[in-house]
Amino acid sequence: MTTHKTKQSSSMFELGDGRMSEQDRHEILSDLAQEMQGKQQTFLGYQVNQELDYSAFAPFLNVHINNAGDPFTPGNMTMNSKEMEKAVLDYYADLWNAKTPHQNTTGDSYWGYTLSMGSTEGNVYGIWNARDYLGGKVLLSDPEAEEVALEASKDGGAKKAPVGVAYQQGEMENGNENAFRPIAFYSQDTHYSIVKAMRVLDFTTYYDQAVATGEECPLVYPDDFPTGFSSKYMGKSGWPLEVPSNDDGSIHIPSLAKLVTFFAERGHPIFVCFNYGTTFKGAYDDIESAVAALVPILKENGMYERAVTYETDDAVKTSTRTGYWFHVDGALGAAYMPYIEKAIDAGELELPEDFAYRPFDFRIPEVHSITCSFHKYAGLPFPSGIFMGKTKNQLLPPDDPMYIGSPDTTFAGSRNGLAGMMMWDFLAKHSEEDHIAQVVKNEEVAAYATLRLQKLEEELNSTLWVERSPLSLTLRFKRPSEKIIYKYSLSCEELYVDGAKRGYAHIFCMNHVTEDLIDQLVEDLRTPGAFPEQMKVERDEDAHDEHNVYSPTIGKSFK
Amino acid sequence: MTTHKTKQSSSMFELGDGRMSEQDRHEILSDLAQEMQGKQQTFLGYQVNQELDYSAFAPFLNVHINNAGDPFTPGNMTMNSKEMEKAVLDYYADLWNAKTPHQNTTGDSYWGYTLSMGSTEGNVYGIWNARDYLGGKVLLSDPEAEEVALEASKDGGAKKAPVGVAYQQGEMENGNENAFRPIAFYSQDTHYSIVKAMRVLDFTTYYDQAVATGEECPLVYPDDFPTGFSSKYMGKSGWPLEVPSNDDGSIHIPSLAKLVTFFAERGHPIFVCFNYGTTFKGAYDDIESAVAALVPILKENGMYERAVTYETDDAVKTSTRTGYWFHVDGALGAAYMPYIEKAIDAGELELPEDFAYRPFDFRIPEVHSITCSFHKYAGLPFPSGIFMGKTKNQLLPPDDPMYIGSPDTTFAGSRNGLAGMMMWDFLAKHSEEDHIAQVVKNEEVAAYATLRLQKLEEELNSTLWVERSPLSLTLRFKRPSEKIIYKYSLSCEELYVDGAKRGYAHIFCMNHVTEDLIDQLVEDLRTPGAFPEQMKVERDEDAHDEHNVYSPTIGKSFK
Repeated sequence: MTTHKTKQSSSMFELGDGRMSEQDRHEILSDLAQEMQGKQQTFLGYQVNQELDYSAFAPFLNVHINNAGDPFTPGNMTMNSKEMEKAVLDYYADLWNAKTPHQNTTGDSYWGYTLSMGSTEGNVYGIWNARDYLGGKVLLSDPEAEEVALEASKDGGAKKAPVGVAYQQGEMENGNENAFRPIAFYSQDTHYSIVKAMRVLDFTTYYDQAVATGEECPLVYPDDFPTGFSSKYMGKSGWPLEVPSNDDGSIHIPSLAKLVTFFAERGHPIFVCFNYGTTFKGAYDDIESAVAALVPILKENGMYERAVTYETDDAVKTSTRTGYWFHVDGALGAAYMPYIEKAIDAGELELPEDFAYRPFDFRIPEVHSITCSFHKYAGLPFPSGIFMGKTKNQLLPPDDPMYIGSPDTTFAGSRNGLAGMMMWDFLAKHSEEDHIAQVVKNEEVAAYATLRLQKLEEELNSTLWVERSPLSLTLRFKRPSEKIIYKYSLSCEELYVDGAKRGYAHIFCMNHVTEDLIDQLVEDLRTPGAFPEQMKVERDEDAHDEHNVYSPTIGKSFK
Repeated sequence: MTTHKTKQSSSMFELGDGRMSEQDRHEILSDLAQEMQGKQQTFLGYQVNQELDYSAFAPFLNVHINNAGDPFTPGNMTMNSKEMEKAVLDYYADLWNAKTPHQNTTGDSYWGYTLSMGSTEGNVYGIWNARDYLGGKVLLSDPEAEEVALEASKDGGAKKAPVGVAYQQGEMENGNENAFRPIAFYSQDTHYSIVKAMRVLDFTTYYDQAVATGEECPLVYPDDFPTGFSSKYMGKSGWPLEVPSNDDGSIHIPSLAKLVTFFAERGHPIFVCFNYGTTFKGAYDDIESAVAALVPILKENGMYERAVTYETDDAVKTSTRTGYWFHVDGALGAAYMPYIEKAIDAGELELPEDFAYRPFDFRIPEVHSITCSFHKYAGLPFPSGIFMGKTKNQLLPPDDPMYIGSPDTTFAGSRNGLAGMMMWDFLAKHSEEDHIAQVVKNEEVAAYATLRLQKLEEELNSTLWVERSPLSLTLRFKRPSEKIIYKYSLSCEELYVDGAKRGYAHIFCMNHVTEDLIDQLVEDLRTPGAFPEQMKVERDEDAHDEHNVYSPTIGKSFK
């Protein structure tokens, strides 16, 4: 653990029974503002935009605005910003090619809400929905459901719902005992919040299930694995711990397809969490191709569509739903890449060689939900973001609090209303052209940084392991000294490359990052001692090629 | 659902591909600021303080400050406010009589963090910890654990942990198959976020379990139930759906004790979520007496302390932990009542008749965790709050992200750093004396409001069902017209009283509420048509006395 301190010492902030003098308090705050503004100038390590302009919001510091409950029902809490929130949601629904506007009676229309925590909340919420949808729980609205003769309910032997019927479990008629036991898949480059969500939600991953049943892995090593896969990333059971990734950090589709086949054949519904912009390498999963590979597997195993029978308060009903849920963790990418696509279409950006832009959004009919952060590409003083799915897939909330006069369809109770207003402000003051110009500039700065670091390699006559995944805003290189890490607030990881552990740092070329700042970094990296020798570490004994990559924590950034 | 609209129309906020003119945007924001400041003047319905003074934070609107990861490890994200966050946590640890300072090596010392969502996050996080602690999962630090001879692990037949060992399940040697199947208890006045947390976490409530096993309820109706309990609140199974409450909204301890006994005797670990300030009635559970009633039951059934054996990476260990977890949802009360206690001690406040102030905090050694909101008593422009527990009860996080250079011990990834700074500012500018004076004033205003409404009853010669639970900041009365509900942003509930459904509204006397505002409300309530006739509703057929109370949604407010 690094133990850098801010300029302030903790005793300075100590709070007691007395009142701090106004002068002391203001001095502390003003010193802190100065310190933060200073750090902002050299901030490079995280996917957070530090170019913010929310000064117009000062009057809102002295009101509490709360969007409690569903965004589409105003409710009794009148100090809300739901009208602005809805405008923001409509904007993202358009950007992600969802059906607008949201309507309770139009199943294919989008539904969503603005987050109070950041993408972690959107991921936990999306995965919770996936678990309960695939688990056959009751939906908020299911207009096409057919009533089943009442006898069936008595025969069914289904558990009775305790309070109301919100979570009555579905039943399938074919006797498949795994029909409501979904299995989760995500790549080894996935953010740590997904791993945490699995625990919080007690969601069984394919690896958990493989260990529990003791079955043999369908992937043959090394033939079925991506080039560069390290045996360090293999569990003792002979299964990869998470779905293997390609060298660039994107999910390896052939491995995913084989793993999904194995569990679909055993009657399990399938949940896949895709990454659109992994945290450390900034890689984009090829979601369109992955879905195309999975659809025939789902169809063959009766999981593309299936009938689910469930009990409500006074009836037994049956309706059709999917036996899979595809969630996109697009923390940075889902907010950024749509403008890249527009830039390409407008002829303002050229694609890297061997890279094709592919849609990740609701144009892929099989995508159920998408989440993005707002403090990453756009920038906000605090964490926030968007969750979006489809109206027809909404679950019935566990409780119906009359108190707030609005259905409890979101994760939080109180919701940050100021965040929604700031999002609206950001979107109102930028045109599509502005965004296109911005992302073209971002790509230029990232390309410039790569070039400068490669030149430095030549100059120092020593490899710095500089790499950048296609269209990514991040580039990675050899971990520099603690002083440099602190100055630029760099984030670091260890990767297994060529069979050995390497310490890496990376930078993110967000909107506030200029070529001047890159030049400054390169100057610092040029100084003697900038790259301390890395500790000798164990070799990966089982390395089977020259690009053996391992990292249990790749992409485990904050969200 | 109520469908009040703000003055703005949604088309006004519509976002397109173009840029909105700066003038239009500023006009919209300034109109909105004015509208919100106006609404603030008559805001009465929710437990949110609208007396805020954070103007000094304008410079922080243009920086992103993020407290990613553990508060006690600075990490590589240098733009954080963790030093201030720690000062806030220390303050609350003192206020709640926890052992300070936090030290990883002192198991009894407090550990906590500031929330980004509000108490919902603190509740979900606390209940997640309870589930996994009682489920025998591995702790973050367990210095007193003894290693068990290695043979035991091979015999044990425990499931192998998939990735690392973070969530290896414990094992008990006495063959009790329920040893790691905790059962949850909470009262019928509990906030809807707890009901939601049960679903999210797939935590079995005593009612779920009763229905699943088909056993008979140990409570005899009506003898074992509180006066005023309505049969409407009874499930078809013959069990109460949630633990019955007293008329004032506090948990009925004899019912709780009997229900806990039933499940403790069957070998289940016990989780209780107490309320300290219920949402609709503002009632305080008598936690000290409840714990005193439960301890002998836990001791008799080997659940007060028990040995848990678990596997780590390279060893099998055994250590002692509790077989119960007591969580306090103190959204408003935990931040407010400590000053009431100080006011009583200082002789500045007299207790209501028949009411004794009892501690709810870490002075009760059996309390594991407490959560409170900061936007309720203190006030903040957005939701936030505190979660606090003890270091020795922390669970090992599911993943260890090197990326942020700080352990992932909290719920969110990104955390609202600005909230921590504002909390610090609020605490720095108020002395203990200020707080005492404030809560005495709050109680006076709540008492004044009760008196004024009672007088109005006399004047109108018609009951308005005015009631106030002891020391509560809220009082409830007959639901007024929609116009009045909207003007004062009132929250409403339906309660079963005297066997009939009644529509109620309530007001909260937060810091910004003055006697003048109460007078204004009473003026409006005096006008003709202020109390529309309530719909004739079904009688509670099974009413067994004159104070039959039912509400499935009592206290289901936003958090």
